[in-house]
Amino acid sequence: MSAERATHILPVILCGGSGTRLWPASRESMPKQFARLVDAAESTFQATARRVADPAVFTRPAVIASSEARFIVAEQLAQAGIAGDIILEPEGRDSAAAVAVAAVHAAKADPQAVVLIMAADHVIGDTAAFSAAVRTAALGARAGYTMTLGVEPTRPATDYGYIRRGRALPEADGAYAVERFVEKPDAAGAQALIAAGALWNSGYFLFRADLMLAELEAHAPDVLAAARAALESATTDLDFVRLDAAAFARAPKISIDYAVMERTHRAGVLPVSFPWSDVGTWDAVWQVLPRDAAGNAVRGRVELLETRNSLVHSEGEGLTTVVGLEDVVVVATPDAVLVASKAQSGRVKDLVGILRAKAHPEADAHRRMYRPWGWYQRIDIGERFQVKRIMVTPGGRLSLQKHHHRAEHWVVVRGTAEVTLNERVVLVHENEAVYLPIGAMHRLTNPGKIPLELIEVQVGSYTGEDDIIRVEDIYGR
Amino acid sequence: MSAERATHILPVILCGGSGTRLWPASRESMPKQFARLVDAAESTFQATARRVADPAVFTRPAVIASSEARFIVAEQLAQAGIAGDIILEPEGRDSAAAVAVAAVHAAKADPQAVVLIMAADHVIGDTAAFSAAVRTAALGARAGYTMTLGVEPTRPATDYGYIRRGRALPEADGAYAVERFVEKPDAAGAQALIAAGALWNSGYFLFRADLMLAELEAHAPDVLAAARAALESATTDLDFVRLDAAAFARAPKISIDYAVMERTHRAGVLPVSFPWSDVGTWDAVWQVLPRDAAGNAVRGRVELLETRNSLVHSEGEGLTTVVGLEDVVVVATPDAVLVASKAQSGRVKDLVGILRAKAHPEADAHRRMYRPWGWYQRIDIGERFQVKRIMVTPGGRLSLQKHHHRAEHWVVVRGTAEVTLNERVVLVHENEAVYLPIGAMHRLTNPGKIPLELIEVQVGSYTGEDDIIRVEDIYGR
Repeated sequence: MSAERATHILPVILCGGSGTRLWPASRESMPKQFARLVDAAESTFQATARRVADPAVFTRPAVIASSEARFIVAEQLAQAGIAGDIILEPEGRDSAAAVAVAAVHAAKADPQAVVLIMAADHVIGDTAAFSAAVRTAALGARAGYTMTLGVEPTRPATDYGYIRRGRALPEADGAYAVERFVEKPDAAGAQALIAAGALWNSGYFLFRADLMLAELEAHAPDVLAAARAALESATTDLDFVRLDAAAFARAPKISIDYAVMERTHRAGVLPVSFPWSDVGTWDAVWQVLPRDAAGNAVRGRVELLETRNSLVHSEGEGLTTVVGLEDVVVVATPDAVLVASKAQSGRVKDLVGILRAKAHPEADAHRRMYRPWGWYQRIDIGERFQVKRIMVTPGGRLSLQKHHHRAEHWVVVRGTAEVTLNERVVLVHENEAVYLPIGAMHRLTNPGKIPLELIEVQVGSYTGEDDIIRVEDIYGR
Repeated sequence: MSAERATHILPVILCGGSGTRLWPASRESMPKQFARLVDAAESTFQATARRVADPAVFTRPAVIASSEARFIVAEQLAQAGIAGDIILEPEGRDSAAAVAVAAVHAAKADPQAVVLIMAADHVIGDTAAFSAAVRTAALGARAGYTMTLGVEPTRPATDYGYIRRGRALPEADGAYAVERFVEKPDAAGAQALIAAGALWNSGYFLFRADLMLAELEAHAPDVLAAARAALESATTDLDFVRLDAAAFARAPKISIDYAVMERTHRAGVLPVSFPWSDVGTWDAVWQVLPRDAAGNAVRGRVELLETRNSLVHSEGEGLTTVVGLEDVVVVATPDAVLVASKAQSGRVKDLVGILRAKAHPEADAHRRMYRPWGWYQRIDIGERFQVKRIMVTPGGRLSLQKHHHRAEHWVVVRGTAEVTLNERVVLVHENEAVYLPIGAMHRLTNPGKIPLELIEVQVGSYTGEDDIIRVEDIYGR
């Protein structure tokens, strides 16, 4: 291990969470950390990864994500030009298990590695200030503290936890020992905490791998044992490290705050004052977006008349208009519209619960469904037909499959398709079509260098996604 | 002329107006009188026609509509099973000209015919009460009065004109001579008018054709002359009577109220108390719709949470949701969303003005465009392609045409298509496809007994509607 390596920080990005409070833009099939809600150019996950991409400070990052999100994570890292280790959780077991996996993973390369735990869905307004704070906090971590970043409160928030600071830590300039972690307070409690100098708990942690392992051994040995076993028995599949499902399932579901932070005697906090948000509600999204003179934040095709202090987010080609309202949130997507009072935007989570209970598919599934080979999107449906637009990335290859209840017509509108149809393989170019009879074994591949797009017209008595008989699949599905 | 005929009433339905205040459900390409906004089963135009379909009381109705609306009028009358004369205005010249056309048209068959003028976009809650009122008012009309129906006010409305009544008319039980027509008052004026027994001016008129001609001759001779000339030089095209454009353009633009009603000394009014609305705003639509215990009126796929006294209208397949709001209007269509405060829903007209000024196509055009042969709807568009769903009614026949910049793939998903492709004519059945190369002369016909539906995939450098070179068209376009 080089001396340089020893001074570097290993970033670990936690990608869990389905972000239902930002429905309908964020859904289980594309949660908020991967959606481009705050910035049209990149997701908060990509921004998070980019924030720790400086090789003078950080080593190759690790990403801990759900198995379902693996192709989105890989695609978004590739888009951002960032290489990382992707560790897949077979199921979410809360943050202590994820942090334990991070610590075990880091210690394998360097027991004294300093690990920075980050959430994938936070917005930070000043990367330079963030980077400086992380380097300062790393000094505390190297000296043996589990450090947190504590955000200077800008309002008496009741939706964040607080940290009361104690004595100054001589090892890291400006940092303090943690006196106590405080749960989300009521409004009066928040006022009192702020008056006493308490800070918001940002959820960013820095620690030395070996010391976190010791803390876990002391305070949450079951979590640590499960994490170790899950990594030891992990399999490598394409570019992913898949934790062993049986082993990982034995990890108790507990947060790192409960499991370690509130119990350790060596917690430190570095006050930071850069703009920070966990973007937990549409109101919070409105807060972090640029706004016009009337206080409106808009995205997409939007027209407003006599409207103030509102967020209007219009996805796709549609036009979204608002007349004579204040303090509202309007989110229009191609298949679902949300209109909410900004003050009650936290209740969107409850709304999604209702949508799930009533089995509305829009609760969890987006119109555009991402797959390892690209994406598809339903564009029309009728009694005995369905029309989809399909995009296959260069080199992408759908499974070899057949259908019992539908025939398919494919019209290539961009790029070139290699179509396997029973025994034959044909190339289909732009403005050419191919017909796949019911029951025919077929496979679609993009052999070219540009994305392949085609229109699929399905005709038959049943056009559901479950009428796919997969015979072979390069993505292990 | 039989004695029976002499006691019958000739209904004339005025279909002008583009209904922009009910955007985005109502647009120039499908104005509110033809949309199914209040009742999912029929338009207000159809309800109006059905309301005067009793052959014991009414003769065959006439419909005066814009040239653009001709196929919608014909289709909706056919759907409702009602035969009528359809008279087309080359341009709107306000209501005096339309009433003059109605009087000339009626007098041709019977100078003493009693004519009932109706708006196509009003909602009436009690057909039996309406019919009884019309029969009573007809007695006044036969006796020589130009009769109006005056609605008993239910609130001090400032958006309606009022009618002050004078002495009782012995010729029609319960009717009065009109003392004075009063323009839309302010709130205090409305209170005073109601206290004095004034009635709302419903815009329904009954008169004897010969007497209205005499009134027009006396008070608006230019309007009458233009209407006479326009009908004399009218052409018959398919089932439509097309007024002569040059002659009709000479009619001064003036309302029947200004031109005749406020000047004649023989105006009568019959008070009526059936539920009536001109459905002029989304607020008015909310007023006439059935509402749940929380005061909400909903249409389509809608879910509400903590929402009260609101109208939520969701067209198409999308899901529309509202959280924590009161007194709002949400109208979601496949290509445009309106969110408005109910109190300011009258300003939607201003919004549409802004949309037009900014050249948003959604200001006037619907996603689904009705044509004499059926309709088409864009379902997807990309850089070099466009996808449409096309429905052709049985017997429908598109123009013989070709395109310079695009090829087309047609996949039949319902029914049978007869496709002319250069010199060939082929039948294309469900689940079959046909390819139309760039420049090929082609024509689509539905030779069958059920609607034909197909998916059209256009591929080419330009897919605009103006790249259609029409060679022949059975609809005279």
